[in-house]
Amino acid sequence: MSNDKINISLKEVEDIAQACLVANGCNDENAKAVSTTIMAAERDGCPGHGLFRLPGYVAALKSGKVDGNASPTFERVLPSMLRVDAQNGFAPLPLSIGREPLIEAAREQGVAVMGLIRVHHFSALWFEIEHLAAAELCAIGCTAYMPSIPPAGGALPFFGTNPLAFGWPRKNGLPMIFDMASAAMARGELMVAARDGHEVPIGVGLDADGIETSNPQVILDEGVQLPFGGYKGANIAMMVELLAAGLLGERFSFEAAECDNKDGGPPQGGEFLLVIDPRRLGGENWLDHTEAFFAKMLAIEGVRLPGTRRYDNRAKSLVEGIEVPLKLHATILSLADEVK
Amino acid sequence: MSNDKINISLKEVEDIAQACLVANGCNDENAKAVSTTIMAAERDGCPGHGLFRLPGYVAALKSGKVDGNASPTFERVLPSMLRVDAQNGFAPLPLSIGREPLIEAAREQGVAVMGLIRVHHFSALWFEIEHLAAAELCAIGCTAYMPSIPPAGGALPFFGTNPLAFGWPRKNGLPMIFDMASAAMARGELMVAARDGHEVPIGVGLDADGIETSNPQVILDEGVQLPFGGYKGANIAMMVELLAAGLLGERFSFEAAECDNKDGGPPQGGEFLLVIDPRRLGGENWLDHTEAFFAKMLAIEGVRLPGTRRYDNRAKSLVEGIEVPLKLHATILSLADEVK
Repeated sequence: MSNDKINISLKEVEDIAQACLVANGCNDENAKAVSTTIMAAERDGCPGHGLFRLPGYVAALKSGKVDGNASPTFERVLPSMLRVDAQNGFAPLPLSIGREPLIEAAREQGVAVMGLIRVHHFSALWFEIEHLAAAELCAIGCTAYMPSIPPAGGALPFFGTNPLAFGWPRKNGLPMIFDMASAAMARGELMVAARDGHEVPIGVGLDADGIETSNPQVILDEGVQLPFGGYKGANIAMMVELLAAGLLGERFSFEAAECDNKDGGPPQGGEFLLVIDPRRLGGENWLDHTEAFFAKMLAIEGVRLPGTRRYDNRAKSLVEGIEVPLKLHATILSLADEVK
Repeated sequence: MSNDKINISLKEVEDIAQACLVANGCNDENAKAVSTTIMAAERDGCPGHGLFRLPGYVAALKSGKVDGNASPTFERVLPSMLRVDAQNGFAPLPLSIGREPLIEAAREQGVAVMGLIRVHHFSALWFEIEHLAAAELCAIGCTAYMPSIPPAGGALPFFGTNPLAFGWPRKNGLPMIFDMASAAMARGELMVAARDGHEVPIGVGLDADGIETSNPQVILDEGVQLPFGGYKGANIAMMVELLAAGLLGERFSFEAAECDNKDGGPPQGGEFLLVIDPRRLGGENWLDHTEAFFAKMLAIEGVRLPGTRRYDNRAKSLVEGIEVPLKLHATILSLADEVK
């Protein structure tokens, strides 16, 4: 397998992503923000949100669906209610613009909500949640995506894969983060499985006739993904729709699909962030208290904290770089070249 | 089956619950709040949170674990951060005391958090969430309970069954509410199945040897309940612990178990409520927008909204009353009598 891969440094990941985005219509600021999140995904061993997504970003720039020169605008609607209008750009720049004001608002008010609107989200939520939790805050984020999974009882795609991410600070170390799709399997993982010709477990999705299948391409092309945990996972997916679209006045997954030009790039939608300062109600020793909880949890045989694998991958890739499929690497280099 | 049941009105449910609680050490105010939630559970066809729980409430009063005369104290820590100290009482009274201030805070600030501390929670969350959502607010609630389910990878009980409830207002009608345990099956349902000698599906829990079993009594007595949806459900259970205990400076499930006197009544812990006003970021037509979402969802064959069954049961029981097992009815009447 390693024959058809190339080892590159994280710096190179960022550089080729940056070059590719700039060559296809991003200004430096937007390209930098996007390529940083792509690098972070590769660094943490999440290729489904890494370079693999670049052709989709490029398609969205080429078709004009996404504005690579967008200048997001920030507004503090109320002391605890913030909004960033992404002005039709990719998510990473508006997220980074809203980050410090959101942290300040949560510290000052105890709780703050930030809505991102008119944004094209195409990456993982944990990247943003980690920044917020690293500021010693509890953070929750979610976003609705293209219709992929049915409501409980139905067999037609309606909810997006709708990731929900949660972060909690640690005393000496990186925050505890989980970031999970409401679908039984993240769409990015399904796409990677399809690309690599791998099967997926039964329970991940149905074919066009509503029959369970292990073929990821069939699920993606004609079928429907299933939620995790039956109707309870479907409830989570519905909650994400209402938070990321209903609450922000943005597009539900089914509306995003109706408006999307199907160029393969990310549709426009909203992203919901909620940040709470544990100091306010948790007491002075809140951090020691939750450290004792994690210690007790980790003392159970077989238990690891969510996000541990990502951090292990990070420690390794910072030293050793990452492996990228040669074909993908070549595609990105050619996308960076062809327009110049 | 109906031979061993008795039909009583909802008024009678409330009356016998009230009499039973007052006879065992509750003041009128606390008894009224608890018996209203018990009536609501029976009304909505949720017997696992209804009269069935009364013997546990009584045990907790008799053992002195819960103060039936508690006077909860309310505090607005910050404009968006509220706290009710239940003063060691049952949850329904402090919830009803915090309700209007929480609604006001959310309307004024856009978002508000309320933490209930030193509270004994023993009923369903949907009752409170429905009140908040009926005020045209988006509401989320959760509480940690006794260790019942393992973290991902483990086989020892650590997280509580940890219900998470979510409510969203409807334009002409009762709010959309889901209220679901992080366990594959709610503990109350498991207790009712054990009482009635019913089996439960495989996947609900393990026996003492970590083997799957369909015997609810074995799961309750020696085994461990499983989370819904594998590691993703375990993540939800962990999030609930951090919100209802870590964030509020209250007891995690494992701490609640260590402190509990095991009288069969509810342990002491915290309860987390988050309320957001959709008007603030959702735009003027937010309610029509989400109604269109629900309409589209309901147009899919086989789909119903969460909570529909409860509302159907409600419509029926308001007219016809409810069926209570004769034995339970007799137990409650004797509990109401014996102390007087």
